[in-house]
Amino acid sequence: MNYEEVMKLALERGFYFPSCEVYSDAQAGFWEYGPSGVGLKNKFLELWRRELIRRDGMLEIDGSQIMSKSVFEASGHLGNFADPIIQCTKCNSTFRADRTIAEISQIEIPESADLEEFDNAIIQNNIRCPKCKGDFDKTRKFNMMFRVGIGPQEEEAYLRPETCQSIFVDFPRLFKTMRGKLPLGIAQVGKSFRNEIAPRQSLLRLREFYQAEIEVFCNPSKLQEVENFSEIENTVIRVQTDADPVSMTCKEAVDSGVIPNKFVAYYLGMLMEFYEKTGIDVTKSRFRKLGDKEKAFYAEVAFDFEVETTIGWLELVACNYRSDYDLSSHAKMSKEKFEVMDNDEKVLPHVFEISMGIDRSLYTILEHSLKDDKEHQRVVLSLKPYLAPVHVGVLSLVKKDGLKEKTDEIYLKIKRKCDAFLDHSGAIGRRYRRLDEIGAPFAVTVDHQTVEDETVTIRKRDSMEQSRVKISELESIIISDTSFP
Amino acid sequence: MNYEEVMKLALERGFYFPSCEVYSDAQAGFWEYGPSGVGLKNKFLELWRRELIRRDGMLEIDGSQIMSKSVFEASGHLGNFADPIIQCTKCNSTFRADRTIAEISQIEIPESADLEEFDNAIIQNNIRCPKCKGDFDKTRKFNMMFRVGIGPQEEEAYLRPETCQSIFVDFPRLFKTMRGKLPLGIAQVGKSFRNEIAPRQSLLRLREFYQAEIEVFCNPSKLQEVENFSEIENTVIRVQTDADPVSMTCKEAVDSGVIPNKFVAYYLGMLMEFYEKTGIDVTKSRFRKLGDKEKAFYAEVAFDFEVETTIGWLELVACNYRSDYDLSSHAKMSKEKFEVMDNDEKVLPHVFEISMGIDRSLYTILEHSLKDDKEHQRVVLSLKPYLAPVHVGVLSLVKKDGLKEKTDEIYLKIKRKCDAFLDHSGAIGRRYRRLDEIGAPFAVTVDHQTVEDETVTIRKRDSMEQSRVKISELESIIISDTSFP
Ligand SMILES: [Zn+2]
Ligand SMILES: [Zn+2]
Repeated sequence: MNYEEVMKLALERGFYFPSCEVYSDAQAGFWEYGPSGVGLKNKFLELWRRELIRRDGMLEIDGSQIMSKSVFEASGHLGNFADPIIQCTKCNSTFRADRTIAEISQIEIPESADLEEFDNAIIQNNIRCPKCKGDFDKTRKFNMMFRVGIGPQEEEAYLRPETCQSIFVDFPRLFKTMRGKLPLGIAQVGKSFRNEIAPRQSLLRLREFYQAEIEVFCNPSKLQEVENFSEIENTVIRVQTDADPVSMTCKEAVDSGVIPNKFVAYYLGMLMEFYEKTGIDVTKSRFRKLGDKEKAFYAEVAFDFEVETTIGWLELVACNYRSDYDLSSHAKMSKEKFEVMDNDEKVLPHVFEISMGIDRSLYTILEHSLKDDKEHQRVVLSLKPYLAPVHVGVLSLVKKDGLKEKTDEIYLKIKRKCDAFLDHSGAIGRRYRRLDEIGAPFAVTVDHQTVEDETVTIRKRDSMEQSRVKISELESIIISDTSFP
Repeated sequence: MNYEEVMKLALERGFYFPSCEVYSDAQAGFWEYGPSGVGLKNKFLELWRRELIRRDGMLEIDGSQIMSKSVFEASGHLGNFADPIIQCTKCNSTFRADRTIAEISQIEIPESADLEEFDNAIIQNNIRCPKCKGDFDKTRKFNMMFRVGIGPQEEEAYLRPETCQSIFVDFPRLFKTMRGKLPLGIAQVGKSFRNEIAPRQSLLRLREFYQAEIEVFCNPSKLQEVENFSEIENTVIRVQTDADPVSMTCKEAVDSGVIPNKFVAYYLGMLMEFYEKTGIDVTKSRFRKLGDKEKAFYAEVAFDFEVETTIGWLELVACNYRSDYDLSSHAKMSKEKFEVMDNDEKVLPHVFEISMGIDRSLYTILEHSLKDDKEHQRVVLSLKPYLAPVHVGVLSLVKKDGLKEKTDEIYLKIKRKCDAFLDHSGAIGRRYRRLDEIGAPFAVTVDHQTVEDETVTIRKRDSMEQSRVKISELESIIISDTSFP
């Protein structure tokens, strides 16, 4: 199913919808997760914790979103985190220079190019305002961080544009108090903020968005020594260097030099196993190795984990070997010590980053799971049962003859142990279809036989198969079939 | 144990610590949760979901933190959410007028008083700058919302000062798409932001803080009709009206008129049962009924849930019956319809709010759980096992003789199902004490007997009792003893 169909589902079934939508000054690029979206997101994050954080014995922190100016001086965001923008001298509309030039004249200029390059392209191609045909002013840089003023003196601070900066800044304390040993992964889930000029496509380019970032601190002289490499050496990943993606095991990727060392391959393999469990179709995925022009200047090697959707390849995760760029920048600016002991060796750790976009991942899960089941005239969201926002719908066939009370009683029993949704009203077929659309793996129906023999009908979402089971067995069936692998 | 002892534990054991602490421009009022704090917080929120959200069949959303200007025009925050502040004409330091006057001259002026009242008190009592003895300028209002500019035009928007506004603004869509029926609880967990003049006491007065807010939408003519009232009617709460708190059941509270109706009593009872399960000593709690001067002008009845700590009574939850103030304000400003059908009756719902401070709740749990066990020369954090950031420490007695490998093997087996911490180094007694300090209910030790007969020692945190169990039984013991009630 395509982007519009996912959007329709999202709006109608409480996955996501625009923020402040009742107001005319609602800003683009801000979206809310409704109840179905919150359920899916919380379960996605639980899977992420199981498959990456706990599996690798990482630490998770939760830091402030507003951070001091010095942090972003050190990180380079104050100087460099800017988009080239152009403003119309007639109607004052503002556009991204690179995108507008590309759309109108098909000339690709990288966003990091000198401002003159954009000005020249605009003049040479006579590019004018798409809204009013007015002339553009000179290209200028627009910093994408949101500034906030702290206290009555309005001291300069910023909403973080990425979650990882707190991990770097907190590293000395964490390594010491948590008895760290290299390699050490430290992770954070939370909101980041970027003042995009042209937010668009709902969850895909937001001004306020969710990241799950992992920074693995390591001794750069030990990148071939990975204790648990055997766990993922046979995991198949799809790697794209120049031409089409090629499937290979993590071991093959290291042996052939496509991935530079076991350390990087270990985390790419683990990431792949995680995404397999999300239900995303990983035959449509690739680790795209970035060329020298695309990757950040400090990155020694960088892979984008991308997945094909109906609106093209989406970058879900950026994996960057960032060397000691971050820790040495913060060490220099703060004059704090960031070196640690690795056995008897004093090292300034290098960092391998696994920076995941949560909103885009959730969009991709929805798109890959949503099926148009024409045979049964229904739309079904075939989520992995452990990611479903609702595990089971509990329905009364009719409300009379004591069936409502019996249904309430069953709901009451199971609702604290699993995510249950009670529904008494409407035609039973319509209630089933609504449950299919939010991906509930089970529907339980209470009918007249229930009050006679303490059995209910249980219907499975994907097969639509129905069978009778005892009420006493219900809980264990649902819990075992919806628990994490 | 007192505030300083909790702070020492927090800093040394990864519960919480100041944000951006390596930098000199770190701002007061911003704190980070370390790995132990994240573990505790996530489990606290899971308990909140079980005991309040799922129990009552509420909906949970997750909305934007940056919201449009109109939202706060309607809510009144743009006009009224301001502190009275005074600035020194000599050194430019800024203070809260009400607090400074109270500290220096013991005169209590409510923060909402006319600005002249503060000016008069300052002149009459000759109050001067506590830092430099300079004179104060006239009192002015300082709005506590953080402003952010959206897009290159810097359009006016704000970081939300409370999470509930998205619930109100999203109500029409949620009620419709989620097939709402009154009463309907909608909840949200997330960050809120207040530009406090004098943030202090770590988690107790933050500029960026966590709330868990529940707004129950109801038909005001049905406040005595609560389907599940019997579930909590015998739950004992401590209510304070004028004098000392009095223990009574929820039913007694309604019958005697201390609580105005069953609807409010039902949620206070549920809240009480939740806090009992957090391990907070509820014999030190009270629902303090606010007098007319204290409560917000729109609140028909208001109770603060407060708990006694070593630094006084802390307000953990504000419970306000807000009538139709919120929905009618947003309806008027947005010109959207906020009325819904309740059976055949068209109503503008009233709102009962349960606004929980997460950071303060976590602080109180820590303070009430931290024990100085002088007999055994240890400090022990007696958290409820299901709230412990680490469920089990997995320790090797020594690293040699294959014990390290055996320990790793056990850790590997259980780490995805429960929160385990692997520890090979240091004296075993010290390792036990560290686990006691982060509240791990179990420690498992692998010794020479383990390699002979596949048994390990399991040590319980509170009793320090040790026993030998089979490795094969370990997982089920730990999971059953650390799972939610
Ligand atoms: Zn124009
Ligand atoms: Zn002064």
